Amino acid sequence: MKKLEQRFLTIQKEIFDVYSKMELSKNTDIIKDSWKRPEGGGGKTCVIQNGNIFDNSAVNFSSIYGSKLPKSALGNSKVKSTRYGFQAMGVSVICHPKNPNIPTSHMNVRLFCILNKNKQIKDWWIGGGYDLTPYVIYKDDINNWHSQAKANLDRFDKSFYKSFSKTCNEYFYIPHRNERRGVGGIFFDNKQYKSIDSSINFLESIAKTYLSSYKELINNRKKETFTKEDKQFQEIRRGRYVEFNLVNDRGTAFGLQSNGRISSILSSLPLNASWVYKKTKSMEAREKKLIKILNKDWNV
Amino acid sequence: MKKLEQRFLTIQKEIFDVYSKMELSKNTDIIKDSWKRPEGGGGKTCVIQNGNIFDNSAVNFSSIYGSKLPKSALGNSKVKSTRYGFQAMGVSVICHPKNPNIPTSHMNVRLFCILNKNKQIKDWWIGGGYDLTPYVIYKDDINNWHSQAKANLDRFDKSFYKSFSKTCNEYFYIPHRNERRGVGGIFFDNKQYKSIDSSINFLESIAKTYLSSYKELINNRKKETFTKEDKQFQEIRRGRYVEFNLVNDRGTAFGLQSNGRISSILSSLPLNASWVYKKTKSMEAREKKLIKILNKDWNV
Repeated sequence: MKKLEQRFLTIQKEIFDVYSKMELSKNTDIIKDSWKRPEGGGGKTCVIQNGNIFDNSAVNFSSIYGSKLPKSALGNSKVKSTRYGFQAMGVSVICHPKNPNIPTSHMNVRLFCILNKNKQIKDWWIGGGYDLTPYVIYKDDINNWHSQAKANLDRFDKSFYKSFSKTCNEYFYIPHRNERRGVGGIFFDNKQYKSIDSSINFLESIAKTYLSSYKELINNRKKETFTKEDKQFQEIRRGRYVEFNLVNDRGTAFGLQSNGRISSILSSLPLNASWVYKKTKSMEAREKKLIKILNKDWNV
Repeated sequence: MKKLEQRFLTIQKEIFDVYSKMELSKNTDIIKDSWKRPEGGGGKTCVIQNGNIFDNSAVNFSSIYGSKLPKSALGNSKVKSTRYGFQAMGVSVICHPKNPNIPTSHMNVRLFCILNKNKQIKDWWIGGGYDLTPYVIYKDDINNWHSQAKANLDRFDKSFYKSFSKTCNEYFYIPHRNERRGVGGIFFDNKQYKSIDSSINFLESIAKTYLSSYKELINNRKKETFTKEDKQFQEIRRGRYVEFNLVNDRGTAFGLQSNGRISSILSSLPLNASWVYKKTKSMEAREKKLIKILNKDWNV
């Protein structure tokens, strides 16, 4: 397990190093916290806050050991019980940039193992993906995001992109708003790609593609100027992000109910969110236009 | 039913009139929206936003007719089905004041009726209550809030306050934070107070007591000055309010799942909320002190 954990820790380090280097200001808080979970396992939470690029960003590693698990968490596995224990490890990334011209991004890669009597892996699967939530629309950026995801997945299996991008659209959906959270990306679960080793290679490629796509996006848009109204609009739309994460996201619900580390789980929430009952006409029009873009299939 | 609805509409009007009159600025938005629910019923949503007193406040009436209802919503009733229909009506109030020295308040009064074949009331019950969420602690204010609630309830039944204030503490609790939402008040459900008529009288007295207690509190504290840090602290704590409403509140969950009017249901959310992974030392100390106050029994 230590070797597997090490590979996820490397993914975490690579991403957080890139984001930290983007923040040159002395006032930016760069925080790295290691923590243990009383029931088994622990993690490392890396956070940027009050940055020039990021209002807040979290790059979290966790590796959890346990034996009690709702059946629903067992996915498609033929193993019907985790009585000898399970191990779940992964890296989760969330970025809420200051500049509304840069979209919010989220990435997750994870490995789930069911153990046998001798604490060896009896069954396992991987899951993850990444998605993008823009506030200002740049169609080329969205198309690049999807094309780069596809190009990477095609190297592994030509059928992956179509299926994963569909799953992403379905998962990041807010039923009570009838809105998608963003313009999608890729998302999958309960997957084995050949061996465990090959599967982690696969996850690494996903993390790398996410990082290079998002870095490009930040660099493209960080110089764009924005108004107070742009920022207000971003905060209202971040309210939707909060709604999805607290009401609809299965991962957040699982974390809150399973005595996870709350401050790490909720590090996905934005620095600021706003709810307004009646918006100005221009804000209404802007939101209507954005939602149309979000609810469209961007799959390439 | 129309007569019953009228009584709730009167409660709504009395409260909203008082709050609207507190707002003298021309820039304040005072909004009254009537709406219909496709499946039956409708409501009236009254909102103040961008006020001098209130960042936002919503005083909502709704009266919903339907037949499909989860069994869990049937409470203690001996009637086990709503196949001939149910009618649920009530008034919900939420106030998020601008000045952090004034606490957030919430009040709800409601009547639930199960109908028979002839659309007459077969069974019914009432529920409701009110609670207070301070950001700055004034112990006298909290004690008054509880004493006034008790004095009113004592006129009806000497046992009510003890039981309702306990239920309030239990209900407005955020398990994942191990924190209460506020310093309590009263809360009850599945209650009959003599006849329907007497029960509505009882709800009216609760609404009136809430209004006079909260008005007093606003007038006591609206002249207090506050700093940018006070406002930041209020926004961080409002993040907790959002967490409770979206993760834990059964009423909100019911509304979101039952195709309610989303903008009315989520008018309970604050204009601004904030999440900060690592707070400053002074903010940490302040929060620790506040949580101690929130988790204390304020029952008189």
